[in-house]
Amino acid sequence: MDVETKANKGNKTSKEKIFEINLMRKIELKPKRIKSKKELSMLYTPGIADVCLEIKKNETLVDKYTSKRNLIAIITDGSRILGLGNIGKYAGIPVMESKSLIYKKFGDVDAIPISLATQNKEEIITIVKGISPSFGGINLEDIENPKALEIHEQLSNELDIPVFHDDQQGTAFITLAGLINSLKIVKKDKNVKICIAGCGSAGIGITKLLLAYGFKNIIVSDSKGTIHRGITYLNKFKEEIAQQTNKENFWGNLQGALKGADVFIGVSGVGNLIKKEDIKQMNKDAIVFALTNPTPEIMPNEINDLNNVKIIATGRSDFPNQINNAIVFPGFMKFLLKNKIIKITLDMEILAAETIANSVKNINKNKIVPGVFSDVAKNLANMKI
Amino acid sequence: MDVETKANKGNKTSKEKIFEINLMRKIELKPKRIKSKKELSMLYTPGIADVCLEIKKNETLVDKYTSKRNLIAIITDGSRILGLGNIGKYAGIPVMESKSLIYKKFGDVDAIPISLATQNKEEIITIVKGISPSFGGINLEDIENPKALEIHEQLSNELDIPVFHDDQQGTAFITLAGLINSLKIVKKDKNVKICIAGCGSAGIGITKLLLAYGFKNIIVSDSKGTIHRGITYLNKFKEEIAQQTNKENFWGNLQGALKGADVFIGVSGVGNLIKKEDIKQMNKDAIVFALTNPTPEIMPNEINDLNNVKIIATGRSDFPNQINNAIVFPGFMKFLLKNKIIKITLDMEILAAETIANSVKNINKNKIVPGVFSDVAKNLANMKI
Repeated sequence: MDVETKANKGNKTSKEKIFEINLMRKIELKPKRIKSKKELSMLYTPGIADVCLEIKKNETLVDKYTSKRNLIAIITDGSRILGLGNIGKYAGIPVMESKSLIYKKFGDVDAIPISLATQNKEEIITIVKGISPSFGGINLEDIENPKALEIHEQLSNELDIPVFHDDQQGTAFITLAGLINSLKIVKKDKNVKICIAGCGSAGIGITKLLLAYGFKNIIVSDSKGTIHRGITYLNKFKEEIAQQTNKENFWGNLQGALKGADVFIGVSGVGNLIKKEDIKQMNKDAIVFALTNPTPEIMPNEINDLNNVKIIATGRSDFPNQINNAIVFPGFMKFLLKNKIIKITLDMEILAAETIANSVKNINKNKIVPGVFSDVAKNLANMKI
Repeated sequence: MDVETKANKGNKTSKEKIFEINLMRKIELKPKRIKSKKELSMLYTPGIADVCLEIKKNETLVDKYTSKRNLIAIITDGSRILGLGNIGKYAGIPVMESKSLIYKKFGDVDAIPISLATQNKEEIITIVKGISPSFGGINLEDIENPKALEIHEQLSNELDIPVFHDDQQGTAFITLAGLINSLKIVKKDKNVKICIAGCGSAGIGITKLLLAYGFKNIIVSDSKGTIHRGITYLNKFKEEIAQQTNKENFWGNLQGALKGADVFIGVSGVGNLIKKEDIKQMNKDAIVFALTNPTPEIMPNEINDLNNVKIIATGRSDFPNQINNAIVFPGFMKFLLKNKIIKITLDMEILAAETIANSVKNINKNKIVPGVFSDVAKNLANMKI
């Protein structure tokens, strides 16, 4: 390597480095032994026929004699990739493939990314049901709402393998985990007032889990203001939120809802949604989770000096307290596969959140959730139900 | 290990050995590096967004930045697994998984087996089209006829990735390769009379390829007798065969067709279909390919002593001249992927057959096709078009 090339190498922008590392063939099968013609004849025709007939006699043997037991499909239709919106059938694949790497690295789950050529709800359901026999689980990913929630509901009811909706469930587990630890630090209980900005997959998933965990004082807002009773929501999931939260039925905007709140959870998808002044209206020892990526609802350094703020978390790796789904999905999916769970229950979701919370050693205001390189995936995989 | 266990181990039946070797997790992803939180942030959110947006701008980059370029799906509906018939959505998976091992071992192709929950033609087409964006190619496998041929035709026309139908095309390539080398040995040319038993995927695929290669004197028969003009075949593929073969329009049974034939190709799916007496009616230096597995149309040792028989091949590994698709599909699919071929043409099929034929060193009557452990996959992958 000559000096100039070396210098260029050293000077690579972070964008160049991103493109370089993403050149790797992320989805690649592990080569397995086939030593001889004899082995080939046992692994393939004619020998394999005996194994097929045995499974035909007893279908549960499919888990013993095939890879179904550890194989999942990551399904997207490209309609809501990260914060990038509807970028189509190809442009979302890198995210799904990287998700597969994370599944393998942290959970030893073999996850095959499948990006669909259709964005039609009924076709997506037909396709996922159609390919399900080969897989032990499904991870729905980055599908727009309310389609994603509807698909998740229907597939969870109709498939005989677990259907995990990471945007909804994964985000909820890690958020509740962070909240459990935060409340220990500020010594508050389930009576806190929680204000959630955003009523998509994440907002709905978080709200339902917080309600199940026992929080009673929750107000959710979307771009039109607080979700409340008195108007009709076409989206049935929002309608449920309207019925179950906002006990005083406050009609107003997010800023109004934030007054006197103990906890803010931002999953709005909108960067810089709120101002320092809004956070100032929160209670003493406020907990602020501004989780939208890449730009949070409010940047941590804007509110670091506020006396009433005790704990700040974001979705970013460059600040403390990164609330990141990668902490959740590898271990939780391994748990589902190991235990051959068909339907994910709220009890399992709560257990997952508590397991994540308990995976943090020496909780403090800058360490409310475990890191992805910690034991958290192992702890989730080994949960006992 | 005590003496008794050792003894038992030594005494394992071949069936026990088959079940034992098939316990391995055949489909398993190769773990890839994620060294640090920094790398994780380049491989996953937020860094990966740059790669997604680049592909959105220029969709051809999907081949550069994702594994699509080397990833295929092996699709079955379980309706015609090996010679076992319709054994359903689970029992065929071991065959597909072993096929994936062979793809990886001999062609370095990453092949994901997908067994479908439906056997409905339209749904199968919807599903394969639906999942196609993630894959660089499709291998259709063990689907009953004429459905398989119809699905292959429609998907080949409508998808922007190659669709390989191994039962039809793979079998045809290797059969033509064996025939090319056999004719060299017996010093006969394309004027030979060829009698094909079986008019399913393999029979139709072989017939079409032999016609394209220049053989003119072909008679095909199915369970009802010779395929001929004068009756209407509901199966349009059979109708085409009726129009293009059997130039003397012989109406009769297989035995009649065999009289004076130079070549017999059995892909009937019926073991012991013909008798020694039938083969005796063939021409001098007869070539007998009895390819049905596990029991061929006639066992080689029944006709070894016939003076008029020069070359015998089967699909079995325990006789010389094993005509086996595993020789074909790994290398041919690699060729398709490397060259980003969308539509497989007859020229490519002929080139593949010739490449397979040329991969045999020192042709002789017991060595008309290459072994699976030879260079044949490499030669196929490196074909120039």
